[in-house]
Amino acid sequence: MTDAKFDITGVGNAIVDVIAPCDDAFLTEQNIEKGGMTLIDEVRAKQLYDEMAPGQEVSGGSAANTLAGIAAFGARGAYIGKVADDALGEIFRHDLNAAGVDYTTTPLVGGAATARCLINVTPDAQRSMSTFLGASVFFSESDINAEKIATAKITYLEGYLFDRDEAKQAFVRAAEVAKAAGRLTALTLSDSFCVDRHRAAFRQLVRNHVDILFANEAELISLYEADNFDGALESVRAETRIAAVTRSEKGAVLIDRGHVASVPAVPVEKVIDTTGAGDLFAAGMLTGLAKGLSLESSGQLGAIAAAEVISHYGARPMADLKALAAQAGIEL
Amino acid sequence: MTDAKFDITGVGNAIVDVIAPCDDAFLTEQNIEKGGMTLIDEVRAKQLYDEMAPGQEVSGGSAANTLAGIAAFGARGAYIGKVADDALGEIFRHDLNAAGVDYTTTPLVGGAATARCLINVTPDAQRSMSTFLGASVFFSESDINAEKIATAKITYLEGYLFDRDEAKQAFVRAAEVAKAAGRLTALTLSDSFCVDRHRAAFRQLVRNHVDILFANEAELISLYEADNFDGALESVRAETRIAAVTRSEKGAVLIDRGHVASVPAVPVEKVIDTTGAGDLFAAGMLTGLAKGLSLESSGQLGAIAAAEVISHYGARPMADLKALAAQAGIEL
Repeated sequence: MTDAKFDITGVGNAIVDVIAPCDDAFLTEQNIEKGGMTLIDEVRAKQLYDEMAPGQEVSGGSAANTLAGIAAFGARGAYIGKVADDALGEIFRHDLNAAGVDYTTTPLVGGAATARCLINVTPDAQRSMSTFLGASVFFSESDINAEKIATAKITYLEGYLFDRDEAKQAFVRAAEVAKAAGRLTALTLSDSFCVDRHRAAFRQLVRNHVDILFANEAELISLYEADNFDGALESVRAETRIAAVTRSEKGAVLIDRGHVASVPAVPVEKVIDTTGAGDLFAAGMLTGLAKGLSLESSGQLGAIAAAEVISHYGARPMADLKALAAQAGIEL
Repeated sequence: MTDAKFDITGVGNAIVDVIAPCDDAFLTEQNIEKGGMTLIDEVRAKQLYDEMAPGQEVSGGSAANTLAGIAAFGARGAYIGKVADDALGEIFRHDLNAAGVDYTTTPLVGGAATARCLINVTPDAQRSMSTFLGASVFFSESDINAEKIATAKITYLEGYLFDRDEAKQAFVRAAEVAKAAGRLTALTLSDSFCVDRHRAAFRQLVRNHVDILFANEAELISLYEADNFDGALESVRAETRIAAVTRSEKGAVLIDRGHVASVPAVPVEKVIDTTGAGDLFAAGMLTGLAKGLSLESSGQLGAIAAAEVISHYGARPMADLKALAAQAGIEL
């Protein structure tokens, strides 16, 4: 195995977020599942946007947020995902490159617009997402850059991509390339509704291809159709090497075969917007694992990154995470 | 004079802001005037954007920010300004409409892109702006909607528009329509470098057309080429009915012919980004004047709105300013 060029290469839906505050009545009126991610078409995207409050546009996309976090920890990351050659696509590309992430996927020309996620944030800081996938689903096997996967210690895949068959194939292909190169494959389940939609395919992928699984409690219980959290943990332990299960303010449970650890959440003065909490937990955890840190220290990096991102609007870090890690006694 | 349909109609450059953090060394490297507004062309805009940190996109434009503030106070506002029919133009339109501002200017088709302002914010919360004017300068006399001006108690003009001759004409036309309808005209000088570029034209406009002038200390001193602040105050007093001069953390000095008042700044826990401070001061002041409040109460509304906007990134209010006014004992 040659030396790795990247610590982590991520594959995901390339999306620009449109974030605006709302109240609970608005979610009811608009029939939006609180805390979830709903797929919408272009017509509905336009209609919902018209009803939303003034917002701010920031680059998003689950795996892309994770890669921005990895770069903020000073680790070497690459990203694969599809935008269109439009203004939002330019913003997405700029923000990822400016964060220090290698990103060279060819944009889609003359087709759908760059994907956008309309995020309504209630006063309790919960985010409810309505996603128009646009150009991001015109992402296929041919966009999988084998070299970037083969030369990364860990390839990180985003469950949301499963919402389209062509992307599902690209997923399996990425995992196969990683395995052939002797590298690790990580997956995040992304969303419990997404797990409901694709349970069988996820189970198969986890069993056959995934070395590191990220999930929250609801997603893990849904994946294994378990009666409770302990039952779900039992199942995941039998199927993957490493699992990181986030539990919001209760912190995270980490499993590495026989070894189980728990990491407390890092306290936050005021939670503003929980968008990106899971993505940034994964950023810390993956950075730690790629750098050969212990399960506990890796989880602590995850908790530090998640705490930073929920203390402001937007799903990408605004602080130097490497410096925050050093303050907590972890030198990267 | 018929009843007014709007409290304030604003005319300005329709711009989307791209806000990113930077250090002082970056400003030096990029040859950016700290705290100022520099006009740049499309090539430079692309080049500077490439060098900037990951950012967030939010609607901006000086007078448009003011109108968003006026709406957040619950007053009735309209806006006139030119975007292109592109993604950023759509964002600009949405944000203004969603804020409750009447905005119907026809977008530019097949020409320059929507204007953008690249704002680099240093750790001391100072913003340094580089503006590509794009579609916003293809704004002309024919875009001046006479009905929206004639039916507004106050027409508010943005000095930045003076950076193009056609817009200058539109300005004078707007002031004439307002006067003919027995309404008031307000002007903000916008920027001391802008005043340097157009001193004679500004002096003439102030003398002949302006009832309410907004400026900061530097702008007012530059306008009258005065030796000091007192000299500049003396001059402005002779030429306009009402003047509001902002002095950052020292608050503001307000003049209404013989009457002089000063208003302290509202303390802020942590200043994050001073973008929009002057725009939002004008929002409060104009709301107060349109509602027939005293000079002091109007200034107090200005101080409340300015304090809100400098406590977060972005130049538009994120709080309900009407509620903040009520907390300070001013019912609107």
